Amino acid sequence: MTVADFSRWSTQALGRVERALEQWVPADAPAGLGEAMRYGVLDGGKRLRALLVLAAAEAAGADKHTAGAEAAMRAAAAVELIHAYSLIHDDMPCMDNDVLRRGKPTVHVKYGEAQAMLAGDAMQALAFDVLTPDETPDGVDARLQARLCRLLARASGQAGMAGGQAIDLASVGKDLDEQTLRDMHHRKTGALLRCSVQMGAACGGLLPQSAAWQALSDFGDAIGLAFQIVDDVLDATQASDKLGKTAGKDADANKPTYVSLLGLDGARDESAQLLERARQALVRSGLGEAATAMLMALAERIVHRDH
Amino acid sequence: MTVADFSRWSTQALGRVERALEQWVPADAPAGLGEAMRYGVLDGGKRLRALLVLAAAEAAGADKHTAGAEAAMRAAAAVELIHAYSLIHDDMPCMDNDVLRRGKPTVHVKYGEAQAMLAGDAMQALAFDVLTPDETPDGVDARLQARLCRLLARASGQAGMAGGQAIDLASVGKDLDEQTLRDMHHRKTGALLRCSVQMGAACGGLLPQSAAWQALSDFGDAIGLAFQIVDDVLDATQASDKLGKTAGKDADANKPTYVSLLGLDGARDESAQLLERARQALVRSGLGEAATAMLMALAERIVHRDH
Repeated sequence: MTVADFSRWSTQALGRVERALEQWVPADAPAGLGEAMRYGVLDGGKRLRALLVLAAAEAAGADKHTAGAEAAMRAAAAVELIHAYSLIHDDMPCMDNDVLRRGKPTVHVKYGEAQAMLAGDAMQALAFDVLTPDETPDGVDARLQARLCRLLARASGQAGMAGGQAIDLASVGKDLDEQTLRDMHHRKTGALLRCSVQMGAACGGLLPQSAAWQALSDFGDAIGLAFQIVDDVLDATQASDKLGKTAGKDADANKPTYVSLLGLDGARDESAQLLERARQALVRSGLGEAATAMLMALAERIVHRDH
Repeated sequence: MTVADFSRWSTQALGRVERALEQWVPADAPAGLGEAMRYGVLDGGKRLRALLVLAAAEAAGADKHTAGAEAAMRAAAAVELIHAYSLIHDDMPCMDNDVLRRGKPTVHVKYGEAQAMLAGDAMQALAFDVLTPDETPDGVDARLQARLCRLLARASGQAGMAGGQAIDLASVGKDLDEQTLRDMHHRKTGALLRCSVQMGAACGGLLPQSAAWQALSDFGDAIGLAFQIVDDVLDATQASDKLGKTAGKDADANKPTYVSLLGLDGARDESAQLLERARQALVRSGLGEAATAMLMALAERIVHRDH
């Protein structure tokens, strides 16, 4: 696949994700809540998780199942809602106290802390709402709906993202060993990235017992870890205006990072190894090079991005 | 049914709910998160929502379905997790700034604001996790899992509880008309109480199209509204130590209440009328007086409680 092919695919996919979120995040939620929710999730971010869902769904053949493509778009929107809510809560004064996100004032700066907390809460509920549309004969199969909710709930909760944030919270100013740092990121960002790939796989009818599922999950693990390592490298080497958020914050807050643990070169080496592990996992999936080309292109983009 | 029968049933049901929550809310979640979650949800509250789920499930014959009783217990735990998370977030300084809940320090007072926010977030995810156990041949049917997630997500989000909280937030110090007050409570507390009844009905195999479902939903609406009216009456007439929370806060904060709108006698009259509407809805359900006796007893307890 050429760079142009990938670029065309991702531009088109991003457009569909934005339109889906536009449709599903209600403007008319009461008392300004809808406005705060839309501010927090629309028109922002790289939509990496959504693209992973859609690429994995295509790789697994979701378009061959009744409403498989619809299920994938719902899963893509749902994981972006979870990610966006976590950023809103993470930015609040009692957590990271960030005032800038994607180059814009954070939600609590714009709408106040109470509305920001509520908007995040409502976005988490909306994620599960989006995953469970009314039952219709040609709609998303109820069994698949349940599977998607199961995957997303486990990746978001105390065993996944929220648990990782708790470790992060407890780690400020402490000497974290490498194992704890890896565990933290495995939960905090890794769980949701892997879940994105798994949800896409589920939309294609793959079951957790299958070899293809296991391989795609390993792919998700590898890129999840690579994502965080590259994040730390960028945080250490790029300026805030390029990142669209405050750079160097973790180092300033004495938070351990992969760069502080492995050094810049060590961190870059490991991200290159993880890209190779991701490639091998796709080969092992048996889905074929053509079907998994978008996933591989996303993995490359994760490792080679500059913001 | 005698008072003793109801008392025996509710004592036994409460014990089962506590044991289920003990089992499902993990003590070993990382970095103190599990401890904060357990503090926020275990050993506390009247478990009204859980009892409504279980009573509605019994009324609808959940025990006649494969894993219907298990599904009902999962739904009961899930709705309590949602309720408990909403209290944790509602108590935080940026919202109601309450330091006392069920006679104990609130979660943010005990564990800090960041951990309290995370604990609430993780509890919302856990609710959907509990509703979607791994698929096994004799486990909770996947279609039912999806239905329960759908009901709970819609009742919790911007169209339900979170939306009601946003209206509440925007209403402090304002002259709210009766229609807006009713809309706020319909969402803020009513949606989850009605959802409890509906989830129980779903565990018994009732479908939203059926007359019995509609009647049980109307029952849920009536007791949801009655609950809030009685809450306002108690808030205006009882001391904090009996309520286990700070009394008179709404009036002090210039928040409108049913008592300030209807007067004490007017509020009491309406709660009596709602109890009668609830009774008629149960008759209309066609499930029979014996099957719905626990639901009726719960409705009476809601209206006649003194704390």
